[in-house]
Amino acid sequence: MSQQKPGTPKGTRDFGPEVMVKRNYILDTIKATYKKFGYLPLETPAMENLSVLTGKYGDEGDQLIFKILNSGDYLSKVKEQDIAEGSKSLSFKISDKALRYDLTVPFARYVVLNQHEITFPFKRYQIQPVWRADRPQKGRYREFYQCDADVVGTNSLLCEAEIILMINEALQNLGINDFSIKINNRKVLMGMAEYVGAKGKEADLFVAIDKLDKIGPEKVKAELESKGFSSDAWGKLETLFNIQSTASEKLDTAATILETTSEGKKGLEELQEVLTLVKDFSGEENFNASNWNIDFDFTLARGLSYYTGAIFEVKVNNVQIGSISGGGRYDDLTGVFGLKDVSGVGFSFGIDRVFDVMEELNLFPASTAESTKVLICNFDTESEKKCLPLLTKLRAAGINSEIYPESAKLKKQMNYANKKSIPYVLLIGSEELKSGQLTLKDMTSGEQTALTINEVIEKLK
Amino acid sequence: MSQQKPGTPKGTRDFGPEVMVKRNYILDTIKATYKKFGYLPLETPAMENLSVLTGKYGDEGDQLIFKILNSGDYLSKVKEQDIAEGSKSLSFKISDKALRYDLTVPFARYVVLNQHEITFPFKRYQIQPVWRADRPQKGRYREFYQCDADVVGTNSLLCEAEIILMINEALQNLGINDFSIKINNRKVLMGMAEYVGAKGKEADLFVAIDKLDKIGPEKVKAELESKGFSSDAWGKLETLFNIQSTASEKLDTAATILETTSEGKKGLEELQEVLTLVKDFSGEENFNASNWNIDFDFTLARGLSYYTGAIFEVKVNNVQIGSISGGGRYDDLTGVFGLKDVSGVGFSFGIDRVFDVMEELNLFPASTAESTKVLICNFDTESEKKCLPLLTKLRAAGINSEIYPESAKLKKQMNYANKKSIPYVLLIGSEELKSGQLTLKDMTSGEQTALTINEVIEKLK
Repeated sequence: MSQQKPGTPKGTRDFGPEVMVKRNYILDTIKATYKKFGYLPLETPAMENLSVLTGKYGDEGDQLIFKILNSGDYLSKVKEQDIAEGSKSLSFKISDKALRYDLTVPFARYVVLNQHEITFPFKRYQIQPVWRADRPQKGRYREFYQCDADVVGTNSLLCEAEIILMINEALQNLGINDFSIKINNRKVLMGMAEYVGAKGKEADLFVAIDKLDKIGPEKVKAELESKGFSSDAWGKLETLFNIQSTASEKLDTAATILETTSEGKKGLEELQEVLTLVKDFSGEENFNASNWNIDFDFTLARGLSYYTGAIFEVKVNNVQIGSISGGGRYDDLTGVFGLKDVSGVGFSFGIDRVFDVMEELNLFPASTAESTKVLICNFDTESEKKCLPLLTKLRAAGINSEIYPESAKLKKQMNYANKKSIPYVLLIGSEELKSGQLTLKDMTSGEQTALTINEVIEKLK
Repeated sequence: MSQQKPGTPKGTRDFGPEVMVKRNYILDTIKATYKKFGYLPLETPAMENLSVLTGKYGDEGDQLIFKILNSGDYLSKVKEQDIAEGSKSLSFKISDKALRYDLTVPFARYVVLNQHEITFPFKRYQIQPVWRADRPQKGRYREFYQCDADVVGTNSLLCEAEIILMINEALQNLGINDFSIKINNRKVLMGMAEYVGAKGKEADLFVAIDKLDKIGPEKVKAELESKGFSSDAWGKLETLFNIQSTASEKLDTAATILETTSEGKKGLEELQEVLTLVKDFSGEENFNASNWNIDFDFTLARGLSYYTGAIFEVKVNNVQIGSISGGGRYDDLTGVFGLKDVSGVGFSFGIDRVFDVMEELNLFPASTAESTKVLICNFDTESEKKCLPLLTKLRAAGINSEIYPESAKLKKQMNYANKKSIPYVLLIGSEELKSGQLTLKDMTSGEQTALTINEVIEKLK
């Protein structure tokens, strides 16, 4: 029986060189944007104490946390009773640690732990993998990167405005231009609930309208009715959802509709303020919110109940994929760890989806694939010896370069260059060594040019 | 009772912004070197199937692998008998996956899994954390980064020579200049064993002499005698260890001593060839191996028994810390996964130690600490409004810049700039806005200069 090839665990992936260089291109672009806005890097351990993670993601989330088996003789601390109580209960006896489920809870834990050293407002970005024991399916993995930026310790709406700027800058630098930054505000949602007489039933309302995009108005209406909402309620909501006008006017109209709800009005004022700040940032006399891809969307709720102010979600137009970014403001992220009243706002890019969008729209620059700039072919031991100082010169000039490590057949060496997307090959045989005129072959055009080593360096630098 | 602050699991660390920017400086420098030599990035999942990892690191290593508890009702598949057999045995029933223990085994697994897609020779670098359930102590962590570069699919000694070049380039670019690349060869060790009549007892011999550096000759001699080696054996070894001459002569002298052992001679020839290749790379007429920090050291064995050719280890002189890099050639890394005869050679930097060395020698450039280049102070809502388009101009010019998000007390804002190592602050009050002459304060010298926004950009770019 032939040995089975060893694979990766279900829902996890290797990232080979071709994929890695593209992923790094995305991450480097996003990092540069985060840094330009004053966000600094943070990394936390892959594992957290189990008590830090449990109870933060709801019952369903808790089930999806990967727990790490205690080292040593973990059974020695287990009683028969513990085993009798079943897997779920036993887990907490034989496992003290778990893999992080997201970057938000570890960030909150970090802020609380270091509250006396941190200078607030604290702007951090964090790009690390997270793990969830989800059922793997297309586009859903058990290990995936999150790419968060958050600022905590201020409730200034400048932060919300800058998030809009950062999303624009990062995506446009990646070549993604046709997208919408959907924005709502938790307070507007609360106002809407009050307006349609759904106080106390907010959760049902938000869950239903959040799906409008996916399942359409008829089904949302039906769901609301099944939850005991009046058909009148849906009519009122539809009026609000269907306001067709510029961003600013949309907020004005909504304010008229929600004028009796103080919370709704407050939320709309916040959105208006964010819009004004983006206008100020733009320096444009004739500011147009759609140029900044701003799309106020009162149906946007997102699942996370800890949002207390702005809510963001980014969708790429004309690409069938979910949101590629999301976030919002939270007033009590660190409260669960004993530090009250630290307001913050943050967002995250979904790297796997950004990657898929860029592949679909063919947005990766050709140079991304380039690794080594030039390969020196290896004809024989004698010429190899003479090529080594030339290779050193290329590298000293900052040119990524290689020599094929053996004097293999030329076809094999050319194939190596092609497979590795190396754009140039240097052919240096005894003739070339005598004359000092090296043959530089352009692997795309096939063109060959005779050049001195200094001319090669000049050309490739 | 006040709530206890939540910490990180034992042996793991948060990396806050100040540490992260320094770590990134190290990693970016190393990555640039790897890329310059044609190595490409690879990432593998944090978890591997348990069967991929077990049996690869010896019994002791197996104990240190962090296992992941299976999701769902893992107890349903466990029989009473399994529990009776104890923790160690039960682990394999309730855990299918584990955290990687190093990057070498996942790399071998990747090569075997993708053998038909990979173009050999395959040069990859991999920089990711690994996890070991070791007892945490100073400088030893349960989560730490490895930073590997390997080439597989060729036995060309050019690769060994290039590893010497890469170590030199990476460390010198980091500012570390006084170090030794200790080099030995497994075949030389085998020849030595034959020479002192220790055939069949190689392991005992290598374990003992590998400690010479740490425990001194007397204790090594005693250990060897306790293992049944003759005192004559130690005398022979000492002659070999004490050869004092240039690198090349050292190899010649050793060849005379080991001339009756064919394997020893072969190993010395390989070392001589590597030395010649480095000389060829250097292009220097008067080549001096010590300029390349080459130090042939016949006591170097390293624990890993899978090395079959060259063995490397790097020590920083005059800093009390272990080796900061190590590696070697292996002829059968992938054999355990069913792919025979893939020779490779690789090495790794220990990032935590490189970090400590750089701190001790004060080698981090001041600019490493710099994050944001300039902070605009926030005086009041009116001036904030006018500052935003200026901030946009700074950022459009590629300058990392921030505005303090609230009109807090100036002292608080200055403190923020200082704590974040922001080198410049822009003071833009109503006067400045009227005149267009902004006040740029150099936070190091305290000097204030009146400049237009374009002059500020010119200065900071």
